[in-house]
Amino acid sequence: MKRLLIVVVCGVCVASLLGVAAAQFARTEDAVRYRQSTMFLIGQHFGRIGEVVQGRKDFEPAAVAKNADLVATFARLPWDAFMVPGSDSGTQMRGAALSDSDGFKAAAANSEKETAKLAEVAAAGNLDAIRAQFGVVGQSCKACHDKYRGR
Amino acid sequence: MKRLLIVVVCGVCVASLLGVAAAQFARTEDAVRYRQSTMFLIGQHFGRIGEVVQGRKDFEPAAVAKNADLVATFARLPWDAFMVPGSDSGTQMRGAALSDSDGFKAAAANSEKETAKLAEVAAAGNLDAIRAQFGVVGQSCKACHDKYRGR
Repeated sequence: MKRLLIVVVCGVCVASLLGVAAAQFARTEDAVRYRQSTMFLIGQHFGRIGEVVQGRKDFEPAAVAKNADLVATFARLPWDAFMVPGSDSGTQMRGAALSDSDGFKAAAANSEKETAKLAEVAAAGNLDAIRAQFGVVGQSCKACHDKYRGR
Repeated sequence: MKRLLIVVVCGVCVASLLGVAAAQFARTEDAVRYRQSTMFLIGQHFGRIGEVVQGRKDFEPAAVAKNADLVATFARLPWDAFMVPGSDSGTQMRGAALSDSDGFKAAAANSEKETAKLAEVAAAGNLDAIRAQFGVVGQSCKACHDKYRGR
């Protein structure tokens, strides 16, 4: 009986959390476009830092700091947009992000933390430190993509 | 002769400016997706402020300030992505944004200025002032869309 109560209460909690996520978007396709837009912009600005840390572009500390700031800002945004029921349909998102939402949120929180740290490191302007933290962020992206992104 | 020199020098300046814009993007379609992503996110977060100033949602000052901050951050980003030659093809962008790039940049700079002001006003937390500046930003969006966006 106690067990049933826990299941019911948890179910209500999850449903209301998903409701909050859905309520931010007028339509499911808005949630999809929101997260895809955010991810694309993260890719663009993270990629610009990549060109520097991989030696394909000159190191301009202010430009790298600006890009890292943007990546950190964007990385705080898209997670709710993944929590909209049915929004995995026809997209690269795996249903696992919804069914294993705790795991997804933990992976997302880790990316958020590491991109915030990249912004801090970039502001300090040491290229070796930026390169190291760039790698850590890349791993945090990959860890989440490996589990929750299909092809 | 002097006139010809001016024309040539200006031509080189414009070409190099366009070159800078194009160089930020590996492919023309990246520029298109970049600006479309940014504009979509601006619409989402500006829309969330709209729901409050139009009385459809309760006024939570911190949430409005966060959304206004995001709009101001995004509004600094997309303009270069419009200056990529050929990137109007098959999109809502009118060729006029390229042929009248000075006019476009002035309209863009105005939107940037007014969204920055909205972020300031929102941080102060007065709903009437936010509503007034929300309208000014809306006008700045419309002024640019009317001239440089087709259907």
